[in-house]
Amino acid sequence: MNKIVEGDNVLLYLDRKRTYLVKVEEGKTFHTHKGFIDLSSLLSKEYGSGVRSSTGVEFIALKPFIADYAFKSLRKTQIIYPKDIALILMFSGVGPGSRVVEAGTGTGALTSALAFYVRPNGHIYSYEIREEFIKTALKNLQRAGLADYVEIEQKDITTGINEENLDSIVLDLATPWLVVPYAYDSLMGGGSFVSFSPTIDQVVKTVEALEEHRFVAVETVECLMRRMQTERGRTRPETLMTGHTGYITFARKALGKDS
Amino acid sequence: MNKIVEGDNVLLYLDRKRTYLVKVEEGKTFHTHKGFIDLSSLLSKEYGSGVRSSTGVEFIALKPFIADYAFKSLRKTQIIYPKDIALILMFSGVGPGSRVVEAGTGTGALTSALAFYVRPNGHIYSYEIREEFIKTALKNLQRAGLADYVEIEQKDITTGINEENLDSIVLDLATPWLVVPYAYDSLMGGGSFVSFSPTIDQVVKTVEALEEHRFVAVETVECLMRRMQTERGRTRPETLMTGHTGYITFARKALGKDS
Amino acid sequence: MNKIVEGDNVLLYLDRKRTYLVKVEEGKTFHTHKGFIDLSSLLSKEYGSGVRSSTGVEFIALKPFIADYAFKSLRKTQIIYPKDIALILMFSGVGPGSRVVEAGTGTGALTSALAFYVRPNGHIYSYEIREEFIKTALKNLQRAGLADYVEIEQKDITTGINEENLDSIVLDLATPWLVVPYAYDSLMGGGSFVSFSPTIDQVVKTVEALEEHRFVAVETVECLMRRMQTERGRTRPETLMTGHTGYITFARKALGKDS
Amino acid sequence: MNKIVEGDNVLLYLDRKRTYLVKVEEGKTFHTHKGFIDLSSLLSKEYGSGVRSSTGVEFIALKPFIADYAFKSLRKTQIIYPKDIALILMFSGVGPGSRVVEAGTGTGALTSALAFYVRPNGHIYSYEIREEFIKTALKNLQRAGLADYVEIEQKDITTGINEENLDSIVLDLATPWLVVPYAYDSLMGGGSFVSFSPTIDQVVKTVEALEEHRFVAVETVECLMRRMQTERGRTRPETLMTGHTGYITFARKALGKDS
Repeated sequence: MNKIVEGDNVLLYLDRKRTYLVKVEEGKTFHTHKGFIDLSSLLSKEYGSGVRSSTGVEFIALKPFIADYAFKSLRKTQIIYPKDIALILMFSGVGPGSRVVEAGTGTGALTSALAFYVRPNGHIYSYEIREEFIKTALKNLQRAGLADYVEIEQKDITTGINEENLDSIVLDLATPWLVVPYAYDSLMGGGSFVSFSPTIDQVVKTVEALEEHRFVAVETVECLMRRMQTERGRTRPETLMTGHTGYITFARKALGKDS
Repeated sequence: MNKIVEGDNVLLYLDRKRTYLVKVEEGKTFHTHKGFIDLSSLLSKEYGSGVRSSTGVEFIALKPFIADYAFKSLRKTQIIYPKDIALILMFSGVGPGSRVVEAGTGTGALTSALAFYVRPNGHIYSYEIREEFIKTALKNLQRAGLADYVEIEQKDITTGINEENLDSIVLDLATPWLVVPYAYDSLMGGGSFVSFSPTIDQVVKTVEALEEHRFVAVETVECLMRRMQTERGRTRPETLMTGHTGYITFARKALGKDS
Repeated sequence: MNKIVEGDNVLLYLDRKRTYLVKVEEGKTFHTHKGFIDLSSLLSKEYGSGVRSSTGVEFIALKPFIADYAFKSLRKTQIIYPKDIALILMFSGVGPGSRVVEAGTGTGALTSALAFYVRPNGHIYSYEIREEFIKTALKNLQRAGLADYVEIEQKDITTGINEENLDSIVLDLATPWLVVPYAYDSLMGGGSFVSFSPTIDQVVKTVEALEEHRFVAVETVECLMRRMQTERGRTRPETLMTGHTGYITFARKALGKDS
Repeated sequence: MNKIVEGDNVLLYLDRKRTYLVKVEEGKTFHTHKGFIDLSSLLSKEYGSGVRSSTGVEFIALKPFIADYAFKSLRKTQIIYPKDIALILMFSGVGPGSRVVEAGTGTGALTSALAFYVRPNGHIYSYEIREEFIKTALKNLQRAGLADYVEIEQKDITTGINEENLDSIVLDLATPWLVVPYAYDSLMGGGSFVSFSPTIDQVVKTVEALEEHRFVAVETVECLMRRMQTERGRTRPETLMTGHTGYITFARKALGKDS
C-alpha cells in the first residue's frame, strides 16, 4: 500500500530547492533541466525509491505532504505559508472531526490543509465569490484527494454564513472584521475564530470587532521561521528569509450573559 | 453535545494571562485569588458560558484545545511549545491515520498533540525510560481523553525501535543522532523523521547522521513567535518574547539503491 | 593614563549578569552579596585589574563604555536600549562635530550617547519639560564626563525649536509628529530626522507628517537583538529575549522647490 | 558651508530603493534610466536641493552618511552591514579619540565607519594581505574623506599585531580565534575585542580562545533588522528580510593576576 499507482501525485525530489509535483500516468514523461523522466517507470515502485532521468541524475519519489500541496498549489493568488497554516491549526483547536467554515477559498491551499486534518469525520465549508478561484481550488483539492471533505459555496461571506454550531471559522480575506458578527452567530459556545491578515490595520479593526461581540481569549501573533544551513564547521542561519507574511488573530466565543 | 458534563476538563478563562484547567465534578469548588467557583454550577451549562466566582468576577468556561493541554500539562520537565508542535505536525506529514513513533514521552505534551491529530485511525508509540514520566504522561493523556491512541513503551529508543513501516518518527531527546539508524529501518519509504533540539551541536550531529543514512529533504528551521498588543492608538509587539526554544530538523527516507 | 584615579567611575564586572557602576573614592567601600570591596584599593591600579572582595571573590575593574552608562543610568523612566541608540547613530549620520537637537532628555541615556559621539567639536541641545528629569539627566551626564557637550533646555519641543542649521534632530517622545514642522525649519538641507516610538500608531502619524513636509528617504525599522549562549557542545540562542523596544523612523530634509 | 563644491561626493536620491553616489565635477553628466543629470548644475547649490534629469524627474542631492558609503563601497567582497557596524561601535566603546586595530580591511566599509567615529584624534590601523583590496579600500577611504585617519598595513594579522596599548581590536576575518593571543597583548587593560563571523563554528572557537586568555564580559549577539512599510491603512513589515549576516562577539581584556 506504499506503492506508487496510476494517477498518484508524486513529489520528485532533486534537492532542497528543486522538487516537482507530478501525476504518474502510463506513457507520460516529465521534462526537467536535468533530462526527462519516464513516469511509467515509477509504477508499482515503492515510495522513497530513486528514479534516474535520461541524463542519469537521480530523483527521489516521495508521497507529497499537505505542506507540499500548499506550496505547489496552482497559484493565481498569494498563498498562505505552511508555517502560518500550522499555527492556525494548533491554536484554533481544529482537528479530526471539526466542522469549519473558511473564507476565502482562493486557490485552496488553506482549504486543503484544513480538510486534511479534519478527516475522516469533519467537514470544511469554504466561501469564495470568484468563479475562477473555485475552479482552481477544486482542481487542487481533487489532486490532493481531499475534495470529499470540502463544500465550496459561491457566496460573499461578509453578507452572512449559512452554517450553524461550528467548531471554528478561519478567514483569509481583506475585511475579516465584517465577518465577525456572522461568525459569532454561527459558532458554537467556545468555538474559535481565526483571521490571517498582512497588515496591522486589518488586525486592529478585527480585534475591535471581536471585543465588541463577546469574544474572549483574543490574541494576535506573528511567526518568523528561519532556515539553518547545517554543515559541520560552517553552520549558520540562511541569509535570506521571509520577514513577514501576516498576523494571525485568534479568539473564542463566549456566550451572551442572558443565554 | 456542547454541554459540560461530570468529569469534563474545562478551561476557566479570566484573561489572557490567567486561565485554569479544572476537572468538573459535583460538589467541587475551585479557589482563585478572585474568590472560589462552585464547579457544580457548570454542569449542563453550554461551553462558552460565563460563571461568577464568590466575589462576582466572571470566568468563561471553554473546552480546552490540545494547545491548552500542552501548556497546562503536569510538568516535571521542560515542555515543547505549541508553536513548535505546530511546525512538527505540518512538515512531518502526520495527520489522521498516521502511525508514529515518538520519544521521549516526557510529560506527554507532544505525545498528546500527536495523538490528537492522528485520530481516529492512527496510533502513537511513545518511548520513555523513566517510570515517573510514564505515570505523569498517562495522567495527562487520560485527562485529554487521548490514552486510547497511545502506547507507551518503557525502553531506551537509542537501543532500537520495535515498530516497522512507520509514517513518521518524532524525537525530543538529548541524543537524536543515535536513533537515526533505527529510524531509517523502521520508517516506510518516504517516511518522515523529525527531531527537536535546543542546541546547534545536536542539530549538526543529527543532520550528519541523516545524510549518512540516505535521508533526503533534510531541513532545519527555528520559529520565533511574537505576540502583538492590539489596541487602537497603542498597537505594538509585546515587550517580552521567548527568544529560543529549539531547532526542528526534518528529513524523509529515500530507499537504498539496491532495494 | 589608563590608571584608575580618585573620582573615576568604574564598572565592576563579576559575570555577564552582574556588573556594578561605582565611583572610586578614598576610604569608600562597596557592598555586594559576595562581600564588600575596598574601593581605595583600586586607586592607581590599571584598568582591567582584578580586585577581590572581603570573601575572596574577584571582580574586574573596567572603564565603563557609553553603553554601560546607558544601561546603568539612574532611571526614573523607561530607557532606550543601546541596540537602538546604535542604529540611531549609524543611520542619522551623527558623529564627531555634529550639532544635534534631542528631545525628551528623560534620564539622559540617549543624550549621553549622542554627546559621546559628537565630541569634541559637536554639541547636543536637549529639550525636557520636567524639572526632576533635568536634574537626573545632568547627574548622569556629569558622571559620564559629558556635561560640557550638552545644553539642556527646559522647553516643550512641540512648541518650537530654538536652534537652526542643525545636522540632526533625534526624538524619543510621545508625539513626534507634532515636532516635524519645527524640525523641518531647524535642520540644514539634507539634515536628518530620527524618531524612536514604541507603537505603530506613532510611526504612522510621524511618517505622514514627514511626507507632508518634503522629507525624503523616510524609512522605519525595528531591531531584534538576540544573545547566544556559546559553549562547545551546548551552543544555542538565549531563551529569553526582548521582543520589542520600539520602531525607529529616519528621514532627511529636502529643500523646498523654490529655495 | 552646506553648499556642494567641486569634487564633493553626493548621494542622488530618487526613492528608497534607488540612490546613486556620484562625484560632482564641472562638465560631468550622470546617466540614469530616468535620463541624464548635469552634475555641474549642482555646484554651489545647497545640500538637500532637488535637481531634475533631462526627462524632468527630480532627484534630491544629499550629503552621504557613513552608512551610505558602506552600502555603496566599491565591492569586491561581501560587505558588513551598517546594522552590524552600529552594534560593533556601541558595544566596543569605540568613539572619538580611540586607537583601533582592524582586520581584514576588505573594501574598507568597516574601516571607513570606524575612522568616521574616531575623528579627529583617534586612529585606525587596518591589516590586509591582499594588494587589490588595499587599493580598493584606499579609494573608498579617500572618497569618504577619511584616509587621514587610517593606516593600512599589508600584513597577516594572525601572525602578530604591531601596535600596543590599543583601545579596541575589531575583526572581520575567517579565523578570528588565531588573533586572540596577539589581541590580548596589544590591548590596554579593559580594552575591547570584537569579532564579526557568519558561522556558529567561528563563534565557538573564538569564544573558547577568549576565555583561555583572561578576557571577560564575553558576549555574542546577532541583530535582525526589519523594515516597515508605513502607509495609513496598509502598514506592515516588509516581506523580504535579510535573515542573517553574522554573529558579533564582544569581550574585554582583564589583566593577568600577577601584573
